[in-house]
Amino acid sequence: MKGNILIAQSGGPTAVINSSCCGIIQQALKHPGQIGAVYGAVNGILGVLNEDMIDLKKEREETIELLRHTPSSALGSCRRKLTGNELERVMDVMKAHYIRYCLFIGGNDTMDTASKVDTLAKRQGYAMQVIGVPKTVDNDLVGTDHCPGYPSAARWLAIAVRDAGLDTQAIYTTDTVKIIETMGRNSGWLAAATALARDRACTPPHLIYLPERPFDRAKFLRDVERVYRKLGYAVIAVCEGLKDKKGQAISESRAKTDIDSFGHAQSGGVADILCRLITDQLGIKARFDKPGTIQRVSMVCASEVDLEESYLVGTAAMEMALEGKSGYMVTLKRPKGKKYRGATSMIELERVANVERLMPDEFVSEDGNDVTAEFLEWLKPLIRPGLPKYAHLKKVPVKKKLDVFYANR
Amino acid sequence: MKGNILIAQSGGPTAVINSSCCGIIQQALKHPGQIGAVYGAVNGILGVLNEDMIDLKKEREETIELLRHTPSSALGSCRRKLTGNELERVMDVMKAHYIRYCLFIGGNDTMDTASKVDTLAKRQGYAMQVIGVPKTVDNDLVGTDHCPGYPSAARWLAIAVRDAGLDTQAIYTTDTVKIIETMGRNSGWLAAATALARDRACTPPHLIYLPERPFDRAKFLRDVERVYRKLGYAVIAVCEGLKDKKGQAISESRAKTDIDSFGHAQSGGVADILCRLITDQLGIKARFDKPGTIQRVSMVCASEVDLEESYLVGTAAMEMALEGKSGYMVTLKRPKGKKYRGATSMIELERVANVERLMPDEFVSEDGNDVTAEFLEWLKPLIRPGLPKYAHLKKVPVKKKLDVFYANR
Repeated sequence: MKGNILIAQSGGPTAVINSSCCGIIQQALKHPGQIGAVYGAVNGILGVLNEDMIDLKKEREETIELLRHTPSSALGSCRRKLTGNELERVMDVMKAHYIRYCLFIGGNDTMDTASKVDTLAKRQGYAMQVIGVPKTVDNDLVGTDHCPGYPSAARWLAIAVRDAGLDTQAIYTTDTVKIIETMGRNSGWLAAATALARDRACTPPHLIYLPERPFDRAKFLRDVERVYRKLGYAVIAVCEGLKDKKGQAISESRAKTDIDSFGHAQSGGVADILCRLITDQLGIKARFDKPGTIQRVSMVCASEVDLEESYLVGTAAMEMALEGKSGYMVTLKRPKGKKYRGATSMIELERVANVERLMPDEFVSEDGNDVTAEFLEWLKPLIRPGLPKYAHLKKVPVKKKLDVFYANR
Repeated sequence: MKGNILIAQSGGPTAVINSSCCGIIQQALKHPGQIGAVYGAVNGILGVLNEDMIDLKKEREETIELLRHTPSSALGSCRRKLTGNELERVMDVMKAHYIRYCLFIGGNDTMDTASKVDTLAKRQGYAMQVIGVPKTVDNDLVGTDHCPGYPSAARWLAIAVRDAGLDTQAIYTTDTVKIIETMGRNSGWLAAATALARDRACTPPHLIYLPERPFDRAKFLRDVERVYRKLGYAVIAVCEGLKDKKGQAISESRAKTDIDSFGHAQSGGVADILCRLITDQLGIKARFDKPGTIQRVSMVCASEVDLEESYLVGTAAMEMALEGKSGYMVTLKRPKGKKYRGATSMIELERVANVERLMPDEFVSEDGNDVTAEFLEWLKPLIRPGLPKYAHLKKVPVKKKLDVFYANR
């Protein structure tokens, strides 16, 4: 059946959404017999509601190709849960524009919307193939080995924490404790990835706190003091979504405008709070880096695997739709074998919608303040080409000739 | 006169200090007739006080070469003002180890220390060549066109703000205002550099606030509201060191441990405070990114010019010392001509010590919330190879067929 296609992107931007979008478009253009127009919804489902769409066939070929190396979301995104009769409105727009292939790029909220659109289309007997394309730096979608967007953000954070760790190592006599706050509302995948920064024993990060374990202030202070006593400094990665044993966020939402339409509080400020805790309770100077959205959308450290796979899930989604499949999200699976090579499969949208995949127990250290070797083995193949190589001095000491010593601060 | 050399690094780390260090070492090794041992002080002047030094001739050649691409400070750094009889102790250590060439890599505090060491050596009649090697992301040293370290941090920030700006552009319906906080205690050079992120009209950053102009909350809110009304979102760069017209820092130091031994308050939190101001007063959601130390020490966006020049100032410093000069800091000058090519000169240490070079008036826009075209012309040659090229869609709208419209949030 010949028809038009609509691409919509939702949720937080990443470095590689546009690569998926490029994959969809370039694959669609290979099937002129089946596909008419290629439309993009401006700002995701909002663009559909407002009938605000752009014609992607009017773009230059080079521009489409350049999307593979352009971060964020070129079509625009949104966080918008459909309410009232908006789902019907979406269907009206689809029908008015002969949309027969509808591809939603996003996370679990997006898959919820995609699933509802698919269900209604089927109920109304309107022939439309709805396919979800996974995307989230949070890496919290079920049914897929990992999520496009995550490996690039993971690599960015690993490099940033290694660099910021070297910074603290160099100037520890002044800046003694550094906390780096990562994204992650409920899951610690991003904070966990900072463990890749370690290139030898005792190098940063020394402690990693994940929302998968209840945060205990007293234990945290003991951990920090132990590292400080051993090394003279400490570099710590914390996830923004840390919660105490009652499930209360360490950093509570400050204002009503901080809550999105799905009811999720936009947290932040954990690192700031923990720095103050360290300074007040241990009397040690602590500072924090909060790279915020830069970590999720930066292209400079993009993983080569991620760039390839995000394109791959785009082309796979288009192929699935053309084969007449609907109501599925493309997934990535990890074939057995030494050399990593991503491959795709699929899962029903309704099984993905609104479900969050947290770090499994075997990836979190027993003490709850680190990751396991198993996690690093799982992650390493995804962040090709790995981390840059830095110089390590042997530091052969010069024999002392005097006998007066000074304090080391 | 044959003698040993001592290299000491002080102050905040950068991406390219080690490149200067490498320049000094490799240049020193070319003069075996004049130079005996090559020592590095561990953690700057603290290492000298503690007679804690390493023998750099014991390092592998490849390790020394790799320093050119290793960020932070491999010898370790400190922020330590000499007090009491510590200056005499420094001289005792120099004499005990036959240090005849002493090279201090650092900013204006470091040049103060270097100047005092030079003065005392001369007074004591101890033949030692003391040369300062400029280094600071703050770009606030006088007598030099710019400071090694600054171009790399500037390029990092420009790329980060472009990426984070694309992020807000894509998801502005939820994350409406974004503030990116840059370093800069008293000078706005780093915040100013974010202006490079703009690749066409109306692209981020829309507003830039520098400590060179007193910060006015009411005017700030008017500025933000104006941009928001025009574009529907706003991306703002602010310097951590913003002060009001009474000279009071917008973000005050929180604790005594936040003040370093030079008496400088370590500020931070400006972006957080301004986000709350926007949310409270304008009712718009605002979030902030505070890349913190990552901006100053990241190697992934290092400027090629900076890598070359930081090496160059190292070799020039060594040559100056060998020529018998003492009491000078190497400077970078900008030769006339179309194609930028850095060249070195020198200035007396005492003229640099403790003096801060702020952004000149011709680099700050009249309204005080942006930079001038003149500033960008000055900066551009320093951040080679510039910024990555991204796709810009033409966004040809699809003709509407329905007549119901929805709100755009």
